[in-house]
Amino acid sequence: MSDNIYKIIEIVGSSATGIEDAIEKAVARASTTVRDLRWFEVKETRGHIEEGRVAHYQVTLRIGFTLAE
Amino acid sequence: MSDNIYKIIEIVGSSATGIEDAIEKAVARASTTVRDLRWFEVKETRGHIEEGRVAHYQVTLRIGFTLAE
Amino acid sequence: MSDNIYKIIEIVGSSATGIEDAIEKAVARASTTVRDLRWFEVKETRGHIEEGRVAHYQVTLRIGFTLAE
Amino acid sequence: MSDNIYKIIEIVGSSATGIEDAIEKAVARASTTVRDLRWFEVKETRGHIEEGRVAHYQVTLRIGFTLAE
Amino acid sequence: MSDNIYKIIEIVGSSATGIEDAIEKAVARASTTVRDLRWFEVKETRGHIEEGRVAHYQVTLRIGFTLAE
Amino acid sequence: MSDNIYKIIEIVGSSATGIEDAIEKAVARASTTVRDLRWFEVKETRGHIEEGRVAHYQVTLRIGFTLAE
Amino acid sequence: MSDNIYKIIEIVGSSATGIEDAIEKAVARASTTVRDLRWFEVKETRGHIEEGRVAHYQVTLRIGFTLAE
Amino acid sequence: MSDNIYKIIEIVGSSATGIEDAIEKAVARASTTVRDLRWFEVKETRGHIEEGRVAHYQVTLRIGFTLAE
Amino acid sequence: MSDNIYKIIEIVGSSATGIEDAIEKAVARASTTVRDLRWFEVKETRGHIEEGRVAHYQVTLRIGFTLAE
Amino acid sequence: MSDNIYKIIEIVGSSATGIEDAIEKAVARASTTVRDLRWFEVKETRGHIEEGRVAHYQVTLRIGFTLAE
Amino acid sequence: MSDNIYKIIEIVGSSATGIEDAIEKAVARASTTVRDLRWFEVKETRGHIEEGRVAHYQVTLRIGFTLAE
Amino acid sequence: MSDNIYKIIEIVGSSATGIEDAIEKAVARASTTVRDLRWFEVKETRGHIEEGRVAHYQVTLRIGFTLAE
Repeated sequence: MSDNIYKIIEIVGSSATGIEDAIEKAVARASTTVRDLRWFEVKETRGHIEEGRVAHYQVTLRIGFTLAE
Repeated sequence: MSDNIYKIIEIVGSSATGIEDAIEKAVARASTTVRDLRWFEVKETRGHIEEGRVAHYQVTLRIGFTLAE
Repeated sequence: MSDNIYKIIEIVGSSATGIEDAIEKAVARASTTVRDLRWFEVKETRGHIEEGRVAHYQVTLRIGFTLAE
Repeated sequence: MSDNIYKIIEIVGSSATGIEDAIEKAVARASTTVRDLRWFEVKETRGHIEEGRVAHYQVTLRIGFTLAE
Repeated sequence: MSDNIYKIIEIVGSSATGIEDAIEKAVARASTTVRDLRWFEVKETRGHIEEGRVAHYQVTLRIGFTLAE
Repeated sequence: MSDNIYKIIEIVGSSATGIEDAIEKAVARASTTVRDLRWFEVKETRGHIEEGRVAHYQVTLRIGFTLAE
Repeated sequence: MSDNIYKIIEIVGSSATGIEDAIEKAVARASTTVRDLRWFEVKETRGHIEEGRVAHYQVTLRIGFTLAE
Repeated sequence: MSDNIYKIIEIVGSSATGIEDAIEKAVARASTTVRDLRWFEVKETRGHIEEGRVAHYQVTLRIGFTLAE
Repeated sequence: MSDNIYKIIEIVGSSATGIEDAIEKAVARASTTVRDLRWFEVKETRGHIEEGRVAHYQVTLRIGFTLAE
Repeated sequence: MSDNIYKIIEIVGSSATGIEDAIEKAVARASTTVRDLRWFEVKETRGHIEEGRVAHYQVTLRIGFTLAE
Repeated sequence: MSDNIYKIIEIVGSSATGIEDAIEKAVARASTTVRDLRWFEVKETRGHIEEGRVAHYQVTLRIGFTLAE
Repeated sequence: MSDNIYKIIEIVGSSATGIEDAIEKAVARASTTVRDLRWFEVKETRGHIEEGRVAHYQVTLRIGFTLAE
């Protein structure tokens, strides 16, 4: 296991509901094209405001996955 | 639209409930004095602890709004 | 009060549920060995992914507490 | 002069033309409501893309001005 | 108290005497137009040099104050 | 729109002419292989020097685009 | 000496008087429980404001000390 | 050469031996799928500990390569 | 495993030999007083110079370990 | 070539015209006293404002050059 | 004046007395070899501890001066 | 000793062998023109890649030395 190689990609998830939901949508979307996702880090949390209220959250994740040999 | 000018202000919202609630309170308060709020970024997430438990969350937001011409 | 001295420690809380739960678990654990916890700051939010879903969140906190004289 | 007090505000200028034009628009707009602008710092340079081309630049400035006594 | 909302502004204080004096001048000036100042953070410490000596210190503060409901 | 997912890639554009030209070349190149580019952020501005003059500018962009569902 | 091991702790000192006094109080307090303090770095300088004046300074230090073998 | 376009990817190399070995493994793996790798930057150096010893090093690299026209 | 709590401490290891050796010395020393060390991150790499040569390396690590329940 | 040693100096260029012109003036001035300038990085972009308009840009560069053996 | 070119150097001043004294010593020393010093920025504030007390402060300054044409 | 003044310069060392060797080459080169080198900090670790392998490491050091009075 000590010789694994990983790649890190950046994905932005959006959600009208909250931060965890945005994170989970980003992870779910990434998992449709990449196998072996391993971890994420939150890089930035932003959002859009409409009519004086939070319309949706946008969370930028760095997501790491194992590169097959 | 490409020539819009925005101003960014920093507001700290507090909530005993959670991070999204603190964000939404900050945005709601800002909207009482500023129109045309457009986006926010989370700059810092902190909180106070009382009796060994989180008493409230404090989230510092940078909030952008359109400056009327 | 103005002459208080504080110490800051770093604790990582984990939770399968969400970010606030991870924060509260870290604070609760710290309060079992340290009295007079006063505030926290979120330093980093990460997590592990299993089977294409968020398995648990890991939130690194800096936690400040009063040093008795 | 050594006892001057300044305030710093953040303004985002936009331009379809380029970075300097976005900076100059932000400064010009700020000067319509604040006197005695003194300096700026570029904090962030971003932009929107439409049809595979840069549609406009957005430059976030910190702008300092003298507070009258 | 846990639901307070704060605003943060940036003020630069100057002083020929020293860093604390520059901080205190910035706070005093801010208090002439804003009530309920609560805390400050030093963001940057700079200064001007004349004839090979420090002519004055310039300290940039982020100052937080309570927004009335 | 609030549930969009984006991916961010990093591209370095070069130009003997200037910063905007380097940005536009990077965006144009990215658009040949990725559809739905949406925004960019300048991460770094560097350049090479030859014979005591700027030979070319190199601008590193983070470019965001919509991931199709 | 080249094989020494050090530990770094974070202490926040407070003072109504000034920044150096807050630093010295933090160092003095740390020295009551840890021997062989060697150096400090200022990580953050903040303070509380009461009645429009600086009530006290709070300086966060990283303090290094030698770990006995 | 002044008009080259580069892409930057992030790869994490692991090694039980040391930092350079982790870097070289990351570069070697990236070269199996991407041609024309040109430079790297070390972004982060971490590692896992087992039984009180470093089990392996993990080095996160940003790796730049030329995009063919 | 998802509910583990970790603490992070900072240790500086020194070595006349090299960076990995300084890291390993810091980890070995920490393991004499703390069980269940899990990971480290390199925060800073410095060193002392004597007679125009590197006399020893000093590597500051953040080291995480599991807190027993 | 792999054993070259470089030195990095910081130069601030000013221009009433724009950012590239400030960069080019800084590079040109540096080349009058240092040979073998190789690259630059933009560290900071600031400017002065007079009468509500940008009076001049100030760009701080880190400039690298080869040290002769 | 708008076309001035500046160079920035880094100097560390030390003082047993305090932060301003360390700054002033660094500026005074720099002025013995460089004319036309114009401004400084505090980059880092550290110090040495002896016998549980601050032995001296060390302040790292970036100092800018005008380059003669 | 508490009143020493230091200057910090930035040097980039290169090596085909590894990071320590690049550091030692930078220090050795600096010592040919400056006496009384005292410490270094690693600011950046990069490298060039040729034919899918690390061709050489480039380590940027900040090096401090005592200024003679």
